[in-house]
Amino acid sequence: MTSSLASLESALEYSFQDIALLEQAVTHRSHSARHNERLEFLGDSVLNFTVAALLFKRFARIDEGDLSRLRAALVKQASLADIAQKLSLSQYLRLGEGELKSGGFRRPSILADALEAVFGAVFLDSGFDAAHRVIARLYAPILVHIDPKTLGKDPKTLLQELLQGRRIDLPVYTVVATHGAAHNQTFEVECAIAKLDIKVTAGGTSRRAAEQSAATLAIAAVEALGPGKGTRRGRPRKSAQLSLPVAVSQESGT
Amino acid sequence: MTSSLASLESALEYSFQDIALLEQAVTHRSHSARHNERLEFLGDSVLNFTVAALLFKRFARIDEGDLSRLRAALVKQASLADIAQKLSLSQYLRLGEGELKSGGFRRPSILADALEAVFGAVFLDSGFDAAHRVIARLYAPILVHIDPKTLGKDPKTLLQELLQGRRIDLPVYTVVATHGAAHNQTFEVECAIAKLDIKVTAGGTSRRAAEQSAATLAIAAVEALGPGKGTRRGRPRKSAQLSLPVAVSQESGT
Repeated sequence: MTSSLASLESALEYSFQDIALLEQAVTHRSHSARHNERLEFLGDSVLNFTVAALLFKRFARIDEGDLSRLRAALVKQASLADIAQKLSLSQYLRLGEGELKSGGFRRPSILADALEAVFGAVFLDSGFDAAHRVIARLYAPILVHIDPKTLGKDPKTLLQELLQGRRIDLPVYTVVATHGAAHNQTFEVECAIAKLDIKVTAGGTSRRAAEQSAATLAIAAVEALGPGKGTRRGRPRKSAQLSLPVAVSQESGT
Repeated sequence: MTSSLASLESALEYSFQDIALLEQAVTHRSHSARHNERLEFLGDSVLNFTVAALLFKRFARIDEGDLSRLRAALVKQASLADIAQKLSLSQYLRLGEGELKSGGFRRPSILADALEAVFGAVFLDSGFDAAHRVIARLYAPILVHIDPKTLGKDPKTLLQELLQGRRIDLPVYTVVATHGAAHNQTFEVECAIAKLDIKVTAGGTSRRAAEQSAATLAIAAVEALGPGKGTRRGRPRKSAQLSLPVAVSQESGT
């Protein structure tokens, strides 16, 4: 099942002096006592610091609140799991039988934790500069493309800023239906932007989740009108009616 | 008002190549545009990482949950403000007039933020090893004395563990009185340990805060009985009755 760690070293462009550290980093606690959780603690903090330093250097003029938002987006579980997939990290994971059977090698939390543990292992093996190099190289293609104005903002915030930029009144969110019993409810929320004749509806397992999904649809609807078109006057437009199925909305989370 | 930065450099045992970085680190946003908030972002993360690495090395056998708890206790605002005071950091702060008049140079949040900014400044000035050295030296006397079993645990948890160690039933917390109107209530909570004849009462602005204060008193009462005495049988003991005034209980926070 597990591939040779030598190919993981190639992917990381880093050769361990003590390969046992890398082996421990890819070992889940379900597999054996010498597992990766302490390394993950160390790796999480070297990652946070390195990404902070990279952002500080790259964006010389944005304030600390924006730096925090960007960092949170770059080090969140989904972002780490993406990087882990590019490294094919799941091929190297050492999992207990239960986790193996239930597909643990595909689980984002396990992949993200193992990747952090790998960073911790590099730091222990050769110090901060080596860990910084490995992390910086993996994040380089991501840093090139990030938009500091939008990354890490939720859809409702993005929609609000988009409309403010065009001097349009804030959208109105309305719960149009609820389904299911008290502890297992889904919500359908409409997001309406009167001036643009936009009304979109989306569902979610919480009111907030449904609002975020509706905001995502509304952004798409606004952008489909073209840049800044919303600010022109006296031009009737076809009403945009979109809707997302309830099931999809769960992905947008809270 | 502000002392020469040369003496702060002496206290830090670090000489800046670019003294403007240190000047910025001690400049609050109320003072001028070139303030310390971005440096604080950077310093917070180099501090978190360095303390993580120090703890990882010092405590080779404790798990990541305990490492996290210890780190949180070491980098919290109050801990940083203590270190800032030892460095006499308040003497070097550059504050706006409003903050000066309202005693901002004594405020723990301002001191803690400035200290983090100083760590960020050292990192920018000379890199990670220098920042690590400065932080490790300041934390060395603290690390020597920490008890990994108790640091960062709240009083209720500590009391529970103390009693479990002596095989005594868990304490019982009871709200014995509330005072004031709905949005400005104080609570009086009794903590009773039947087997030890201990009943103590403390107040707080929330039920939880009052329970924590009562637990603090109960720990003192248990410890006053001497080591392990609670486990002996058939020996009647004088009932310990202590109480804390409501005002004091607010310090124990949430």
